Amino acid sequence: MKRILSGYRPTGMIHLGNYFGSLVNWIRLQSEYDCYFEVADYHALTTYYQHTDELPDYKVEMARDWLAAGLSHEKATIFIQSLVPEHAELHVLLSMLVPVPWLERNPTVKEMIRDMNLQDNITYGLLGYPVLQAADILIYKAECVPVGQDQLPHVELAREIAKRFNHLYGKTFPVPEPMLSQHPKVPGIDGRKMSKSLQNAIFIRDTYKDIKRKVYQAFTDPKKIRLGDPGHPEGCVVFAYHNLVNKDEIDQIEADCKSGKLGCVECKKRCAHAIYEFLIPVRENLQNFTPERTKEILVEGSKRARKIAQATLEEVKEKMHLK
Amino acid sequence: MKRILSGYRPTGMIHLGNYFGSLVNWIRLQSEYDCYFEVADYHALTTYYQHTDELPDYKVEMARDWLAAGLSHEKATIFIQSLVPEHAELHVLLSMLVPVPWLERNPTVKEMIRDMNLQDNITYGLLGYPVLQAADILIYKAECVPVGQDQLPHVELAREIAKRFNHLYGKTFPVPEPMLSQHPKVPGIDGRKMSKSLQNAIFIRDTYKDIKRKVYQAFTDPKKIRLGDPGHPEGCVVFAYHNLVNKDEIDQIEADCKSGKLGCVECKKRCAHAIYEFLIPVRENLQNFTPERTKEILVEGSKRARKIAQATLEEVKEKMHLK
Repeated sequence: MKRILSGYRPTGMIHLGNYFGSLVNWIRLQSEYDCYFEVADYHALTTYYQHTDELPDYKVEMARDWLAAGLSHEKATIFIQSLVPEHAELHVLLSMLVPVPWLERNPTVKEMIRDMNLQDNITYGLLGYPVLQAADILIYKAECVPVGQDQLPHVELAREIAKRFNHLYGKTFPVPEPMLSQHPKVPGIDGRKMSKSLQNAIFIRDTYKDIKRKVYQAFTDPKKIRLGDPGHPEGCVVFAYHNLVNKDEIDQIEADCKSGKLGCVECKKRCAHAIYEFLIPVRENLQNFTPERTKEILVEGSKRARKIAQATLEEVKEKMHLK
Repeated sequence: MKRILSGYRPTGMIHLGNYFGSLVNWIRLQSEYDCYFEVADYHALTTYYQHTDELPDYKVEMARDWLAAGLSHEKATIFIQSLVPEHAELHVLLSMLVPVPWLERNPTVKEMIRDMNLQDNITYGLLGYPVLQAADILIYKAECVPVGQDQLPHVELAREIAKRFNHLYGKTFPVPEPMLSQHPKVPGIDGRKMSKSLQNAIFIRDTYKDIKRKVYQAFTDPKKIRLGDPGHPEGCVVFAYHNLVNKDEIDQIEADCKSGKLGCVECKKRCAHAIYEFLIPVRENLQNFTPERTKEILVEGSKRARKIAQATLEEVKEKMHLK
């Protein structure tokens, strides 16, 4: 059974973009692979080091969302990065092999710096984000890494680091393969990529009222002004949501939008309702995972993860003549 | 009793530059301070990651030299950096607070890059050398750091990091003070700073034959060609050595050199002999510290060090809301 590593930074609750972009994929993979899913709290510090007050809550509540959505702590190992300090140690060792230009030209880090206006304030930790991510992957000798398109450069770097290590010290790490998730990017209500930091996200714990408010604000076809105007669903955020949560009705909605029979107000109403309905089982399942129970699961998973990590680190240190 | 942290990278044996530049100072300090002396093996990787075969030997043999020279494992805590993995963890956490420009403008890293021709090949680990050093200092909450002039920028950075951490998360670290060692730089036999990598060093385990050969090659006053020429001891490497190991005769040697009475050949012969004699007790003392005994001392010291490091890391993680 091949091993997979993936994870998320605990910087907020899970939204539909996370759900359809990663979680659905993880839930499918957990039966076929030996899965490690990480609450990446060190990584959260790369950009949120000044605001860590909410970190403890986010770690637990994000994992609760995962579990409620269907991630199984029996099938997969779900853990907290900082409870496996071997990640930090491998990170320091790998950092010695990584030329700075490999990092400076990383397009994902560049994009993050641009989006967050960090040009003059990029930290050493942020520059090394992909090295830490490589340590996350390699410490479990993961063979596959489910990622979105935007994370591909990180996996590429992890591959380079694995190859370099193997070349210098002897075959140790499998060279990890990216697994692109099959779902497209989920648009936020403003049409940009759904993201916590862009404040355009619908969260899986949002109330019906919140969902309605957000969907009603959502960006739709600008050429469709009134009922009767023919719509262009391919550029419409609301249609994209229907396509995710309302599969049964999607063909009818598409036809009725295009013909002008379905107006945006009615369409949004049905969309908000469909999103809400779709999320009911997840929300109900949250009750089965109290914060206390979730913490137990995370501590247990971290212990399991740590055993693997310790064994890898021992091997790495032997190969590097650090023992 | 104030706490001190200092250390060396295990990249070779101890030479007179290390001995007079640091070790003599450490030996004096160990009775007055709570001292932590580190075999900095992670740091060795910043420039020697491609050649780690000799690292295990160097770690033990460097510590043997320390002990033979008079460092006491009863007075001080002598330990190996990688046996205290909390250094790596604190390093990752501190890395999040350190803007890259703080590192890029570090003159000591710049100089190292220039001296080793690493311009196009500087690694992430080498760029973060001073962050790792700050972690070494701060994890023991060291208040003083005995350093040479060239290491001052690193202590300055550790001070900045301590202040930044305290500002962001509440008072945690003392802001460490540099303690400049009282001995001047020891010249190598070619007149440049004595250094393993410049191959101009006299090692404390050198045989009499080696010492003679090196001293005879040493750079002396270029204006003193033959016996009878008046010398200028202030620029002479051999005179500098006399000044370190031959205090009783130094005034006479200075006078006889200046007057032309003492020729360079005779002066070098006496210098080689004086160095050899000076090192006899250190060499004899090596027998009291076998490699096995030294390893025990290092493991024991690392356990002691680790207790302090663990307590600091716990506190750091609590303050950063990582617990």
